[in-house]
Amino acid sequence: MNLFTRRHFLTQIGSFAGATYPAMMALGLLKSAPVHTMDWQGSGQGKKIIILGAGLTGMAAAYELAKLGYQCTILEARDRSGGRLFTARNGATTEETDNGKSTAVFSEGLYFNAGPSRIPHHHQLTLHYCKELGIPLEVYNNINEASYYFSEGKGKLANQKIRKREIHNDMRGYMSELLFKAIDSKQLDTTLSKEDAEKFLEYIRAEGGLNIDNLYKGTARRGYSELPGSGTKTGNYAAPHPLADMIGSGLANPEFFNVAEYAIELQMTMLQAVGGNDRIATELGKKVGRNIRYRTEVTSIKNGSEGVTITYTDNAGQHQLQGDYCICTIPLTVLSDIDHNFSSPVSRAIDKTAYIQCGKIGMQFRRRFWEEDEMIYGGITHTNNLLYQIFYPSNDYLGKKGMLIGYYNFNDRAKQVGDMSYAEREKLAYEKGMLVHPQYEKEYEQKAFSVSWHKTKFSMGGWAIYSDEERKSLYSHLLQPEKQVYFAGEHLSYLNGWMAGAFESARSVVTALHARVSDQRIAYPKVS
Amino acid sequence: MNLFTRRHFLTQIGSFAGATYPAMMALGLLKSAPVHTMDWQGSGQGKKIIILGAGLTGMAAAYELAKLGYQCTILEARDRSGGRLFTARNGATTEETDNGKSTAVFSEGLYFNAGPSRIPHHHQLTLHYCKELGIPLEVYNNINEASYYFSEGKGKLANQKIRKREIHNDMRGYMSELLFKAIDSKQLDTTLSKEDAEKFLEYIRAEGGLNIDNLYKGTARRGYSELPGSGTKTGNYAAPHPLADMIGSGLANPEFFNVAEYAIELQMTMLQAVGGNDRIATELGKKVGRNIRYRTEVTSIKNGSEGVTITYTDNAGQHQLQGDYCICTIPLTVLSDIDHNFSSPVSRAIDKTAYIQCGKIGMQFRRRFWEEDEMIYGGITHTNNLLYQIFYPSNDYLGKKGMLIGYYNFNDRAKQVGDMSYAEREKLAYEKGMLVHPQYEKEYEQKAFSVSWHKTKFSMGGWAIYSDEERKSLYSHLLQPEKQVYFAGEHLSYLNGWMAGAFESARSVVTALHARVSDQRIAYPKVS
Repeated sequence: MNLFTRRHFLTQIGSFAGATYPAMMALGLLKSAPVHTMDWQGSGQGKKIIILGAGLTGMAAAYELAKLGYQCTILEARDRSGGRLFTARNGATTEETDNGKSTAVFSEGLYFNAGPSRIPHHHQLTLHYCKELGIPLEVYNNINEASYYFSEGKGKLANQKIRKREIHNDMRGYMSELLFKAIDSKQLDTTLSKEDAEKFLEYIRAEGGLNIDNLYKGTARRGYSELPGSGTKTGNYAAPHPLADMIGSGLANPEFFNVAEYAIELQMTMLQAVGGNDRIATELGKKVGRNIRYRTEVTSIKNGSEGVTITYTDNAGQHQLQGDYCICTIPLTVLSDIDHNFSSPVSRAIDKTAYIQCGKIGMQFRRRFWEEDEMIYGGITHTNNLLYQIFYPSNDYLGKKGMLIGYYNFNDRAKQVGDMSYAEREKLAYEKGMLVHPQYEKEYEQKAFSVSWHKTKFSMGGWAIYSDEERKSLYSHLLQPEKQVYFAGEHLSYLNGWMAGAFESARSVVTALHARVSDQRIAYPKVS
Repeated sequence: MNLFTRRHFLTQIGSFAGATYPAMMALGLLKSAPVHTMDWQGSGQGKKIIILGAGLTGMAAAYELAKLGYQCTILEARDRSGGRLFTARNGATTEETDNGKSTAVFSEGLYFNAGPSRIPHHHQLTLHYCKELGIPLEVYNNINEASYYFSEGKGKLANQKIRKREIHNDMRGYMSELLFKAIDSKQLDTTLSKEDAEKFLEYIRAEGGLNIDNLYKGTARRGYSELPGSGTKTGNYAAPHPLADMIGSGLANPEFFNVAEYAIELQMTMLQAVGGNDRIATELGKKVGRNIRYRTEVTSIKNGSEGVTITYTDNAGQHQLQGDYCICTIPLTVLSDIDHNFSSPVSRAIDKTAYIQCGKIGMQFRRRFWEEDEMIYGGITHTNNLLYQIFYPSNDYLGKKGMLIGYYNFNDRAKQVGDMSYAEREKLAYEKGMLVHPQYEKEYEQKAFSVSWHKTKFSMGGWAIYSDEERKSLYSHLLQPEKQVYFAGEHLSYLNGWMAGAFESARSVVTALHARVSDQRIAYPKVS
């Protein structure tokens, strides 16, 4: 299917007239050439496209296809668009397989992103659509040295909230100190000049904050024990935590250290839509909303000789819809329970692809005590208990009330919490949260809303997860169309769980479908 | 003067009824007790206080003194309040000793903070006043792994813009690798259990991103060379920079590495006032503005037997003003040229205290190319040339036009640039900026405004700088009142150059003055 070289492909789909061109620059191919604004040739000739799912992928595909002259109909099982892009505010509802329906009851203006909450600065298509749709962005403050590590019940530093900067800088300090003790300057000299070796040692000294004896005794980087001020208030810092204590409490485990710092997906700058990320779905919905049929549950997808036939049910009963092509964005965990006549490798990929278990709870507080009492403005506290993470809001700083994401967990933690009732989850978040923030007792307003994505109807999972082997045995089979049916969604990307995965996949499938219809012989984008 | 213990002092000035109490918590004295809202006993009895300077210190002092029943008059040499807290927007003016006056000509809505631009999350009084005055805050995105290091003309990596994440992660990787090569496991065993030693090694491996052979070969942390996407776009990263190349280009020098990362004053979270930090001055001005006499230049400060006499000039000529007390917030570099009858140690401290040389230039661009082309949302690029830093705006992301701070430099760099004309500075910022961002050529709108603080009338310096010795020989003499005259300002704090230093000093001087007037026998705050 890869009929052209990658450069040729990009040349074909890229517009050279526009003003934005980061993707190609990032790819190292071109110094300046826009790729975000699609500028395909040819027309969709009014072909009928049935899109299954009004999530980001389905809506972005419909938005681009409409520009090309296709007629799109989107079938959406929920009564809202966005799918897993879901901002919980007053009146929002969710429905889980075991727990039934739940409705959020929050004060006006309060919300939390129950789905994706962060936009990495290099997720260019997400940012492209935010710009094209006029959605204002603000920083999602993923890195906050003032937030905590909390190790429940483990080691000498157990059950203390410890500012991340203390652990970060103490660990760096001990590492540098150890290197100075262990190093044989001859080892350095083999690769570096004598002068450069001295500079590298100077770097190590600076990196660790060592004293003139090359020992780590703490620095102000680890935080003040007495804040500096006016007059004679010089400020002071406490002695470092003993290395053995940090290790013994698990604070040097990857679970804690550098989890939220180093990964490129979590590096600053991160962004979010002002007022809630669902704004991205809302604005896309303004473009394609008239084509969405809500509360329609697909029961069957059948490729035929002349097109594709979708059977769905709504309040009025069962219906059939004929299309020239279908773009199926339904999560594979949900699609697996829908009747179809796909080939066996495709069917197997649908049935076997695993999705992550994950869950979040939003909790409303009458006072932003994390800011007022604890100097925490955004960021994340990490724990080793079921909460795993507490997210502090990156919006409305110094406001009156506020919401915390009381936990955001994955895998086994999320499974345990997902198996609880809504009330049990709230109790868990409250009781474990109290260990870190005793202010919960006075400030929590008994308003919570939780979502376990792997138990949520029409989602049934956080996002697709693949091993390298599964990328070959499962994923690869869904990259080609199954006759008239194209598959798309974050699960058909290497950006699983990110909005950008949905957008990238939408772009790919529109590219492939339009190439077929307009005979431009441009295949799915492939890295050559 | 330290009549009470520190705990006693805090008990006296702290209100226990309010809802905010971070300072004492941070000081480790109390688990919960507010300190931000002043709740002194006693009245100022209508005493007349002359405050010299309508910067943050002078206005905050007047604001608090008014609450206590004092009558304040503020003399301000400029035609605006705020002093060095200065946001340059259309129509803003500055005046330098060599260069004369300059007026900013920017498009509506564009601005840059020519003075303090960042509020650390632990600068509690700054945040307290923002909250009390209803000033909305947003994140100042000080940490951005996508911004650049740029080493002009030095070594093999010269004249390339290199994403900070490449250098950060490559240096960490080599350091971890070296440690693995150099380490003698017996060295670890002396301080750690065998199990903990293994965990520490695991930490070092994770910290550096080493492969299973404990070698550093790069990871995606250093950035993608091909971005991951949909379909078969797996993403890829390039090989690390050779260690010797990074060192040879100076990128391991403290000047570059971790400058903006580790220092507690620069750790995230950092904040700024929405719409420009001068909003803090503007809102304070709404409280005390009727007491400010603008365009009044103080020429003499004389302590007398019954009070203090200030001589000043304005358009109408020379005037004298009598007060019971004076709070002098005039920068020492300016005060040094004003006639006074202070004692010799005080006079010497005024004359000898050094101020930093620093300067910024704001430049207007028709397009936010750093966001659109380069995925840079806020943060700082560091160079080894005269620019030293380029600041990207942390506001109005995805907007149409935008401002860069084209340089922000100190000391020798700032001296060289400060000696230039306004036009020469613009030319420098343009030409050196072009090395990093060739888009300047097309996008720069020929609108610039520069401030060299050490050359700026009524400021004559960025902020006070002291050696440890000078804290004793100079600084200490200004902490006590000189008869009726109290000294205050960032220069009388350990938070030099920060707005918090001004606020802390204002609090101290109000505390001391009120203790004297109301006979509460509370001295300047001292850490016991």
